[in-house]
Amino acid sequence: MIVPAIVAKPDFIVTRASHAVLTVRDLKASRAFYVDVLGLVVSDEDRDVIYLRGLEEACHHSLVLKEMAGAPSCERVGFRVLTEEDLDLAKAYFEKAGLPAEFVRVPFQERTLHVTDPAGTRIEICATMATRERQIIQFRKFKSACPMRLDHFQVLTPFVGKVWGFYAEMGFRTSEYVTEADGEMVRAIFLQRKGNPHDLVFVKNENGPRLHHVAFTVPETYHLLHFCDFAANSGFGANIEFGPQRHYSPGYAQFVYCRDPDGHRLELFTNHYQTMDLEEPPARWTTEMLKSMPGYGIPPPDKWRSEAMPFSKI
Amino acid sequence: MIVPAIVAKPDFIVTRASHAVLTVRDLKASRAFYVDVLGLVVSDEDRDVIYLRGLEEACHHSLVLKEMAGAPSCERVGFRVLTEEDLDLAKAYFEKAGLPAEFVRVPFQERTLHVTDPAGTRIEICATMATRERQIIQFRKFKSACPMRLDHFQVLTPFVGKVWGFYAEMGFRTSEYVTEADGEMVRAIFLQRKGNPHDLVFVKNENGPRLHHVAFTVPETYHLLHFCDFAANSGFGANIEFGPQRHYSPGYAQFVYCRDPDGHRLELFTNHYQTMDLEEPPARWTTEMLKSMPGYGIPPPDKWRSEAMPFSKI
Amino acid sequence: MIVPAIVAKPDFIVTRASHAVLTVRDLKASRAFYVDVLGLVVSDEDRDVIYLRGLEEACHHSLVLKEMAGAPSCERVGFRVLTEEDLDLAKAYFEKAGLPAEFVRVPFQERTLHVTDPAGTRIEICATMATRERQIIQFRKFKSACPMRLDHFQVLTPFVGKVWGFYAEMGFRTSEYVTEADGEMVRAIFLQRKGNPHDLVFVKNENGPRLHHVAFTVPETYHLLHFCDFAANSGFGANIEFGPQRHYSPGYAQFVYCRDPDGHRLELFTNHYQTMDLEEPPARWTTEMLKSMPGYGIPPPDKWRSEAMPFSKI
Amino acid sequence: MIVPAIVAKPDFIVTRASHAVLTVRDLKASRAFYVDVLGLVVSDEDRDVIYLRGLEEACHHSLVLKEMAGAPSCERVGFRVLTEEDLDLAKAYFEKAGLPAEFVRVPFQERTLHVTDPAGTRIEICATMATRERQIIQFRKFKSACPMRLDHFQVLTPFVGKVWGFYAEMGFRTSEYVTEADGEMVRAIFLQRKGNPHDLVFVKNENGPRLHHVAFTVPETYHLLHFCDFAANSGFGANIEFGPQRHYSPGYAQFVYCRDPDGHRLELFTNHYQTMDLEEPPARWTTEMLKSMPGYGIPPPDKWRSEAMPFSKI
Repeated sequence: MIVPAIVAKPDFIVTRASHAVLTVRDLKASRAFYVDVLGLVVSDEDRDVIYLRGLEEACHHSLVLKEMAGAPSCERVGFRVLTEEDLDLAKAYFEKAGLPAEFVRVPFQERTLHVTDPAGTRIEICATMATRERQIIQFRKFKSACPMRLDHFQVLTPFVGKVWGFYAEMGFRTSEYVTEADGEMVRAIFLQRKGNPHDLVFVKNENGPRLHHVAFTVPETYHLLHFCDFAANSGFGANIEFGPQRHYSPGYAQFVYCRDPDGHRLELFTNHYQTMDLEEPPARWTTEMLKSMPGYGIPPPDKWRSEAMPFSKI
Repeated sequence: MIVPAIVAKPDFIVTRASHAVLTVRDLKASRAFYVDVLGLVVSDEDRDVIYLRGLEEACHHSLVLKEMAGAPSCERVGFRVLTEEDLDLAKAYFEKAGLPAEFVRVPFQERTLHVTDPAGTRIEICATMATRERQIIQFRKFKSACPMRLDHFQVLTPFVGKVWGFYAEMGFRTSEYVTEADGEMVRAIFLQRKGNPHDLVFVKNENGPRLHHVAFTVPETYHLLHFCDFAANSGFGANIEFGPQRHYSPGYAQFVYCRDPDGHRLELFTNHYQTMDLEEPPARWTTEMLKSMPGYGIPPPDKWRSEAMPFSKI
Repeated sequence: MIVPAIVAKPDFIVTRASHAVLTVRDLKASRAFYVDVLGLVVSDEDRDVIYLRGLEEACHHSLVLKEMAGAPSCERVGFRVLTEEDLDLAKAYFEKAGLPAEFVRVPFQERTLHVTDPAGTRIEICATMATRERQIIQFRKFKSACPMRLDHFQVLTPFVGKVWGFYAEMGFRTSEYVTEADGEMVRAIFLQRKGNPHDLVFVKNENGPRLHHVAFTVPETYHLLHFCDFAANSGFGANIEFGPQRHYSPGYAQFVYCRDPDGHRLELFTNHYQTMDLEEPPARWTTEMLKSMPGYGIPPPDKWRSEAMPFSKI
Repeated sequence: MIVPAIVAKPDFIVTRASHAVLTVRDLKASRAFYVDVLGLVVSDEDRDVIYLRGLEEACHHSLVLKEMAGAPSCERVGFRVLTEEDLDLAKAYFEKAGLPAEFVRVPFQERTLHVTDPAGTRIEICATMATRERQIIQFRKFKSACPMRLDHFQVLTPFVGKVWGFYAEMGFRTSEYVTEADGEMVRAIFLQRKGNPHDLVFVKNENGPRLHHVAFTVPETYHLLHFCDFAANSGFGANIEFGPQRHYSPGYAQFVYCRDPDGHRLELFTNHYQTMDLEEPPARWTTEMLKSMPGYGIPPPDKWRSEAMPFSKI
C-alpha cells in the first residue's frame, strides 16, 4: 500500500461535494419524508422531480429526487469545480485516464460534466448553479433535523486503492485512512477538498460501487435526537437505523443514520474539525486501532454495513 | 386486576424518593466513577463510605456508597416524609401490615425508619436530613452529565399487584400502569408523590425484589450525549448500556442507562411531565400498546431487561 | 419584619399555580403571537376567547385570552386545590379574613371560586378542570419556544409583608425572600406549593396589584434562543424585552422575557430546583447581596422593572 | 465605491486566518482567564509567553500571549499560506506594493513573514507550524465555552476602501459588505479564504488600525450561555460585554463577546454558513438595511463599538 503524495496545487480546482441525484419510486412519498419529516427546503419541483437544499444553502439544490419505475438507485453524486475552465480541465483529466466524460445539459446548472471514476462511481460536475436565497435566518422554516447543508458522500467499492491515487492527483487530500493491521491493504480513505475531514469517502466492499450515504449537517446535538422523535411521531421511527451516537473513528462526528422510503441512507451529523494545513499528514488508522478505540453504544445493525444503493445503469 | 382507589389525603405524607444506599466492592473505583466520570458532588466521605448528591440538591446525600466485601447489593432505597410525626405514622402503617419497621441511627439523618414493603423491598425513611449548599450556580463544578437530582427508583418484583394497593394507601398516586393485553395481569406500575410521573416504579419479574435502576435528572439533551463521550474518554464507554434514546412508554423520558463498576444501574434523563391534578386518571397501557407505539432506535440488550441488583440480606 | 412560620399541613391543599386569564384587544393578533410565534397549543376557541395550554399539559388551559375593548388587563390568576372539599375550605378561609369569595361558573372548569387576596390580587381557584391529551410526544407540533407548562406568576404590590402571612397560613412555603439591607423591610417573597422555587412571587412596588409576568417552562437553553430568533423572524423581535440571561437571584433560572401584543409579559425559563424538605429554611437575600452576586449581562431595561399589567376592575 | 473584481485564482494561496499574538500585562492572570475560564488548551508556555489552541486544532497555536510592560496591544494577526513557495510570493506581493515585508524567526513556526497591510495592520504569515494532537475527543478536557478553533479577526480602520482591492487581489473573496445608504461609502467588508463568511473583517472607524476582536467557534448554543455562567462563577461576569444574541447582519452568527483581563475582545459564536461557489455575488447591505433587519435584544454598549486594541508599535 502506498499513500499517494499530496498534490497541493492540482491542475484544476474541485471545491466541494455538492449534490446527489437519486431515483425514487414514489415522489410524493419521498417529498413527505425529505420535506415534512427531515426538513429540507424545496427549490423547485414538478411531477417527476424535486430539487431540495439545506437551510443555509444558496445553491439551487443539494439533493435531486427523480421518480422512476424499478429499483431505486443513485444516478450521480455531484461535485463543484471553481471555474468553467476547471470544468474543461476536469474533462481532459478523465479522458486522459480513458474514463467516460461528456458534457450534458442539466436544469438549474450551467455546463455540466458527466464522468465515471475508476471505481465506476457516476459523477456529475459543474462550476455554476442557479442560486436561491439562503434560509439561514428564516427560522419559521426550521423544522425537525434542520438540515443545514450537504457535507459529503460515502461510496463502497472493491477498488479503494485504485481510486486513491486518481483522486489525490485531482487535489483531494486524505484526512484519514484505514488499513488492515499489517498495513498492506487499505480499507477506507477519507478525501477532502473543502477543508474539513471529508467530501468523499471510499470504503472497501466486495460489491460496488454503491452509495452508502449522503451526509447533511445539523446545528446541534439537540437536532439529532429531535429528528428521531420527529420521525417517530411522523411514522418513520423504523427508518432510524443507527445512532444517535458518535464515531470514534475518522471524523469523530456525532451522528444519526436513517433510511428514506426507498432505502437511500442519510447521515445527519453535527461537527467536523477543520483541516487545511499541509504540515499535518493523513491520519492512519488500522482496523485494530478502530476496535480498541474508546467509544460507547450498541453496535450498528449488520445492514448498516452491508446495504447500500447501486448506481444507476444507463 | 383492580386499580387501587386514589387516596388523595393519606394518613401521613411521603414527599418524594430521596436516596439510595448501595454496597460496592472498591470505594475508590466507585468514587472515580460517580465523582470523576458522572459528576456527582461529594458531601462527606471516609474510608468506608461516601455520601454524594446532585448539583441542585440541598439534602446531604441522594446516593450513599458503602464498601463491603462480597457481591454488591442495594441496602435500601430511601424516601422522605414531611414531618417527624409522619415518621411515627409510617412506622405504625408498616407494623399494622405485619411488616418490619424499626428506628435506626443513620449518619447525617435525623430519626430514620427502616421498613420492608410487601415485595421485600428494603426501605429507609426519614423526615430530616443534614443540608449542604446547593451547587446550582457553582458552574465551575459542573461536569460530564451534570446530574442535578435523584428522581426515582425502579424495582423488579413478582408481586406488582400486591404492592400496588399498599402504596396507594400511603398516598402514592399511579401516573401510568401497564397490563397484559387482556387486562388481567398488571406488568408495571408507576407511582408518584412529588407531582411528576414517578418516584417509585415496580416492574414484574420472577426474580425480586431487585433494584433495576436509580434515576438522576440531567439538564439537557446535550448532557446525555456528552456524558457518553465523557465516559468513553474516561475508559467507561462499555458501561453505557442503552441509549441515548427516548421511552415511548410511561414517562416519555429521553434517557441513557449506564452501569457503575459494580453493575449498579443508573438512568440519566432530561424531562418528565408534571402530574398533580386529581381529575386525570392513571394512564393505562397494555403490553400490545407498548409494542405498537411509535419510537425509534435499536432495542435494549437483553441484560437491560434481566439484570438487576439484589437487595442486601441482613 | 417577621418571617411567617411554616405551616406544613395547612387546612386545605393548594397544589399549584394553574392558569391566567388575560384580556386582549385583538384576539386574532393574540392568537398569532401565542400560537404561531410562541408555540402554545389551542384547546378550544371561539370568537371572543381562546383557551391555550403548554405541550406537556393535560389540563384544559393554562392561559385564557378574552377579547375586550379598552385597556388590557389581567382578569385573574388561577390556582388549583386538591379536592372539591378543599375548595369549600378555601372559601371559608377568605371569608374569615373578610375578603371577597364567591362561587362562579367558568367553562371547562368545575366549581370555581373567585377570591381576592389582601393585596387585591384577583384569584380564581378550582379543584377540577377538563382534560386534553398531553402533546408531550406529538413532536410534529413542537415549535419555537416549545412551552411545556405554566409554572408561576409574579405580582407587584405595596403590601408584600401583608400578604406573606396570609399565604403562609394557606401552606405556601417561602423558598426565598429579599429584604432591605437592614432587614426590616421585605422586598420580595417567593412562595411555592408544588415543590419547586415558586408558584407565586410578590415584589414590592408602589403601584399594585399588577401582574408582572406569567412564566412557562421551555425544554432547553436552545429553545430560549430559538424563540428569540423565531420571534424576530415573525416580526416580534421588539417584543423580546430582556434576556436570554440567568437570574443570579431567587430561582437561578435561565430566562427570556417577552411582551405579547397587548403588553402582557411572559417569562420563559429552563430549570428550577426542587424544594420539598422542611429542614431547609427559606433562603434570605438582602438587596445588597443581590447587587454583589456574580452574574453577567446587560441590565434589564427600566420598563422591565416599572411596567406591569393592572388587574381587571369589575 | 467599486466592488473589487473576484480573483478566483490568485498568485499565491492564503488558506485561512490562523492565529493572533497579543501582549498582556500579567501572564498569570491571562492564563487564568484563557485556560481556566474560557477553556483553551495550552500547547507550550514559559515565564513570558503562552501558546494556546482550541480543542479541535492540530496547529500548535491559534493564540499567543506575551507578557509585556506598558499598555496591552495586538502584536500581529496571523494567516496561513498553503506552501513555502506561497510565502515567497506573498513577500513579493507586499514589497511590490511598497509595504514592509521581512522574514523573521518565530518559535513553533517555520519561515515566517512579517508584513503590514495598507491600513497598517500588522500581519504574520507562515506556511508551516508545529502540530499537536487534536483534543477533539478528549472530552475530559472540555470545559466552559469549549472553544474549538480560531475563525476570524475584525480590524477597525479608516481605510476600508483602500484595503479592499489589496486583499481581493490576494484572493480574499468578499462574502458580504456594508455601504452607506447612498452606496458611495463602504462601511465594512467581510473577507474570506476558507469558505465560510469571514477570515478577516474590516470596519470603518476613524481610529485605526485596531483589533476589534478575535473569534473562536464553540459547539452549541448551550456553550454560549454556559460560558457566561462559568465566567460569572469565576469572577469574570463583568467581562461578558454583549450577548448571547444573534447578528442579524453579515454572518448571522449567534454570539457572545467578552473582554480578557487586558481588554482584548473575543467573540465566541456557533455556526457560520459555507460559501465557496463563485456564482454567488458578495451580499450587499446598506446601513439602512441593517437598521431595518429583524432582530432582537438589547443593543450593544457604546464601548463595544468604540473600544478596540491598538496594534503594537515597534
